[in-house]
Amino acid sequence: MKTVEFKKIVKNYKTVFFDAFGVLKNHKGLINGIDKTFEYLNELGIDYYILTNDASRSPEELALGYHRKGITSITTEKVLSSGMLAMEYLKSKIKSGTVAYLGTEQSAHYIETAGLQTMPISTLNLDQQEHVDNIKCLVFLDDEGFDWNHDINKVINLLRRKNMSVVVANTDINYPVTRKDIAVAIGGIADMVEDIVGKRFIRFGKPDVQMFMFALEKAQKVQQINRDEILMVGDTLYTDIIGGNKFGLDTVLVLSGNTLPENAKMKIRSTGIIPTYVCDSVAVG
Amino acid sequence: MKTVEFKKIVKNYKTVFFDAFGVLKNHKGLINGIDKTFEYLNELGIDYYILTNDASRSPEELALGYHRKGITSITTEKVLSSGMLAMEYLKSKIKSGTVAYLGTEQSAHYIETAGLQTMPISTLNLDQQEHVDNIKCLVFLDDEGFDWNHDINKVINLLRRKNMSVVVANTDINYPVTRKDIAVAIGGIADMVEDIVGKRFIRFGKPDVQMFMFALEKAQKVQQINRDEILMVGDTLYTDIIGGNKFGLDTVLVLSGNTLPENAKMKIRSTGIIPTYVCDSVAVG
Amino acid sequence: MKTVEFKKIVKNYKTVFFDAFGVLKNHKGLINGIDKTFEYLNELGIDYYILTNDASRSPEELALGYHRKGITSITTEKVLSSGMLAMEYLKSKIKSGTVAYLGTEQSAHYIETAGLQTMPISTLNLDQQEHVDNIKCLVFLDDEGFDWNHDINKVINLLRRKNMSVVVANTDINYPVTRKDIAVAIGGIADMVEDIVGKRFIRFGKPDVQMFMFALEKAQKVQQINRDEILMVGDTLYTDIIGGNKFGLDTVLVLSGNTLPENAKMKIRSTGIIPTYVCDSVAVG
Amino acid sequence: MKTVEFKKIVKNYKTVFFDAFGVLKNHKGLINGIDKTFEYLNELGIDYYILTNDASRSPEELALGYHRKGITSITTEKVLSSGMLAMEYLKSKIKSGTVAYLGTEQSAHYIETAGLQTMPISTLNLDQQEHVDNIKCLVFLDDEGFDWNHDINKVINLLRRKNMSVVVANTDINYPVTRKDIAVAIGGIADMVEDIVGKRFIRFGKPDVQMFMFALEKAQKVQQINRDEILMVGDTLYTDIIGGNKFGLDTVLVLSGNTLPENAKMKIRSTGIIPTYVCDSVAVG
Repeated sequence: MKTVEFKKIVKNYKTVFFDAFGVLKNHKGLINGIDKTFEYLNELGIDYYILTNDASRSPEELALGYHRKGITSITTEKVLSSGMLAMEYLKSKIKSGTVAYLGTEQSAHYIETAGLQTMPISTLNLDQQEHVDNIKCLVFLDDEGFDWNHDINKVINLLRRKNMSVVVANTDINYPVTRKDIAVAIGGIADMVEDIVGKRFIRFGKPDVQMFMFALEKAQKVQQINRDEILMVGDTLYTDIIGGNKFGLDTVLVLSGNTLPENAKMKIRSTGIIPTYVCDSVAVG
Repeated sequence: MKTVEFKKIVKNYKTVFFDAFGVLKNHKGLINGIDKTFEYLNELGIDYYILTNDASRSPEELALGYHRKGITSITTEKVLSSGMLAMEYLKSKIKSGTVAYLGTEQSAHYIETAGLQTMPISTLNLDQQEHVDNIKCLVFLDDEGFDWNHDINKVINLLRRKNMSVVVANTDINYPVTRKDIAVAIGGIADMVEDIVGKRFIRFGKPDVQMFMFALEKAQKVQQINRDEILMVGDTLYTDIIGGNKFGLDTVLVLSGNTLPENAKMKIRSTGIIPTYVCDSVAVG
Repeated sequence: MKTVEFKKIVKNYKTVFFDAFGVLKNHKGLINGIDKTFEYLNELGIDYYILTNDASRSPEELALGYHRKGITSITTEKVLSSGMLAMEYLKSKIKSGTVAYLGTEQSAHYIETAGLQTMPISTLNLDQQEHVDNIKCLVFLDDEGFDWNHDINKVINLLRRKNMSVVVANTDINYPVTRKDIAVAIGGIADMVEDIVGKRFIRFGKPDVQMFMFALEKAQKVQQINRDEILMVGDTLYTDIIGGNKFGLDTVLVLSGNTLPENAKMKIRSTGIIPTYVCDSVAVG
Repeated sequence: MKTVEFKKIVKNYKTVFFDAFGVLKNHKGLINGIDKTFEYLNELGIDYYILTNDASRSPEELALGYHRKGITSITTEKVLSSGMLAMEYLKSKIKSGTVAYLGTEQSAHYIETAGLQTMPISTLNLDQQEHVDNIKCLVFLDDEGFDWNHDINKVINLLRRKNMSVVVANTDINYPVTRKDIAVAIGGIADMVEDIVGKRFIRFGKPDVQMFMFALEKAQKVQQINRDEILMVGDTLYTDIIGGNKFGLDTVLVLSGNTLPENAKMKIRSTGIIPTYVCDSVAVG
């Protein structure tokens, strides 16, 4: 498939929204040449944000990950995660009490920041009525940090005993772990549980436009900006590109991640999800 | 199910978002007593907007519908329809050319307002390559105004011949027509077509948060307002209530429409969609 | 993709089950060379049956279609349609009364053969309680013979007024009409209605094993035969091949219909539906 | 809901098919009075079979479970499990080599009986090409006997590396474990994996008619029998009743399990799955 140079496109925009995995980094580390990309953006005064379906770590830790690899331009306030939307929800709708969660202790950061008590499902005792009574909400945060055999069943029976709102802080059903291998993401586990309990969960993350709206609000605090001055860059048609299109942004599909160069044309054709541009990667080399 | 008085609740908010059908009107006309409701809101200086999954008519015509029934408070700028979001999408992403549509001539208003040429599917000739080449986008607007036997198949074969983005301007799969009867809504037809062509369509309408965001932007032009100062009122858990909750609003389920008094408790329990309040209706008695 | 000669494979079996469309015929008429195929099968004493997801016409008419094109080997008793399974269901479960249907008058043959009264949905008057009371069952037979705009909505409201079992006599959601074009099949319309009314319909047709069981019973009346002596031949992985595999038959995917030579390998890989053999067509050249 | 006496109904049939859980036993042990039921059936010379979506144990062990509780009428040959259909599939389609599985060692009985090598996913090393090469098929047998965190991801990556047919030996997505609690069944895990890998699995178990056909074949070896002489008894509309209806059997819904007396009428109404009879339980008291 014929691609265009990212360098030539990006200069026409005031702000760039980047997906993280498959665009800026992969299982081996940083995508080649992205240090130069951020130099170039800084030089031209183009603003940028990272929009990631990730609730496993706080924005601080996510930014630190780039910093350790030598990219100092990506600071905490540049990183916007689906976990932050879950946190905003908890703040506005739950207000007080205990929030039960599936995930690592690290991921529970998003609940704590909302000013709420956290309870990992592993410590929940369903036979203690008081435990069940205290829980105001359940959040699916991360696929790690709990025993799937025990804790998934515990979650199901918690939801059968008490009616509460349920939040899924990452819509992805899987994520890449090596060049060849993937793993079930917490969104995949949440889909299975939703099917079994028959209730309706609240999901945060691309392609939902709330993620893009959240980024736009941040970007507008830096400068006056319209949607047609923003470029969304991603490697996945089903999340980054359709979401960006729906929100009214111009979109770039990069071929450095999920969508392989040999399949790109066929995938665009078969899904009907059409990016404004296709680039090999974000390298400006 | 125990309900609370709408009058006592609404006074604690600066702005109200109302669903239309089942809340303000039904198949017989206006819901009893809503003239007094708007008087009350005006008296207290509470702002309000109508959020409707309806792309069959323009906001002007929708407002005129209330006007004719004696409610003069609902002016054009108070009415926000899913069709307006589709129009915004067309404006920002399509820019020029012809947009094909399924719906009435009236509903095509949303395409015209975006400054684009319209082509009803009925006049499309798939064998004229020029016809097919000119079409930049397809929009599902309304279930009326076309011959389902012919035009649904024509739409399917158009999408097989040319890759284009497809917009569904109303996510509902059915709508009430009398006390007992319902009809297939354009969203239901779009679901069938999407299944058959295997592509991914772009949908506008509640429960998607874009609808709420659109209303918030309007409301913020009138006065400085936060999400916790807005009340969303609807008769349907799956659209009005879950959408309002997700967006961080307080929500009222009214029992004057889709959700019957005898089922409300069971439906809240089985779906896990929990409104902040339940009221019999929006009448302020 | 490397293919093998159908002639060399088929001789190892006692009985062959053929799909019709894409295997024996297409939009232009008979697949090239199938007259010789049936001569060859007759010569070798190999028995054969046509298994088709088609309830639009009776087995007599379906057989006559081949006869008119010069294939006299395909007699009425060789043709097994999903409509016949629907008829068996009606015979055993409905026994008496009126059966409402969507489809052509021709397709209503299957209801009449079950000894039941037929009522096309077009003549149903929902306001006559007696009409509604008489109906014992609803059958989706064919996409032709009725006005979609009116009659689909009538079906939905019939099912809301009276609880009855609903039969879908063809599971396919679309079918080919020319080299390029397809049309919505009655199974696609049934899916939309099922979604809207929220009830569970009973479907007949491949890949459901009932179709294969029905054919096996017929074949065993001719000769003693085991499943491993039967070859299922089809052009569609999702119906013919997965169904045949599940029933324990050896399967041949032919590339003369739905599955194109250039996509076959990728489709087998991506679906995990693996035919025993792949042949260009059933021609024995 | 008005119910009829099982005793009065069952005497009109030659053979009875019973679901196990919720009909003959529950989490506490046997359903009250079923010893008398089997005495009654034996007295009248009515034949019976247990049809169960269970691949966790062999028919011998399942029968032994009843024997230990004092019901000696249920012998091994009376018990038909979805695992046996999976075994038949493996026998006819796989023939030789290694079959990988998720489940307990006990459940692997079904693979061994098919004359095949078994490999629990826990012992699979994806990095040993030889391991991957040897595997001919994957079977989902039971939710116990493996580490969900590790082994579900291993299964996903196995299916990405090698194309093979995948069998799900139990279609249920959950099962009851106490009066209040349920657990994820292996069918639920299989659904999640199928979603993630995008392939099509082969499922065995009610409501699929293959289960009923399998039982009919057994029953016909004992005596000449037609479908209208068989009564299917179950506690679940979605599996026992719709499956039995589709196969042309008369059906009894019992209210001693999944379907509670207070919900039965509403559930029949909302699903459109209509049993021939409703009984409190199979007790003939």
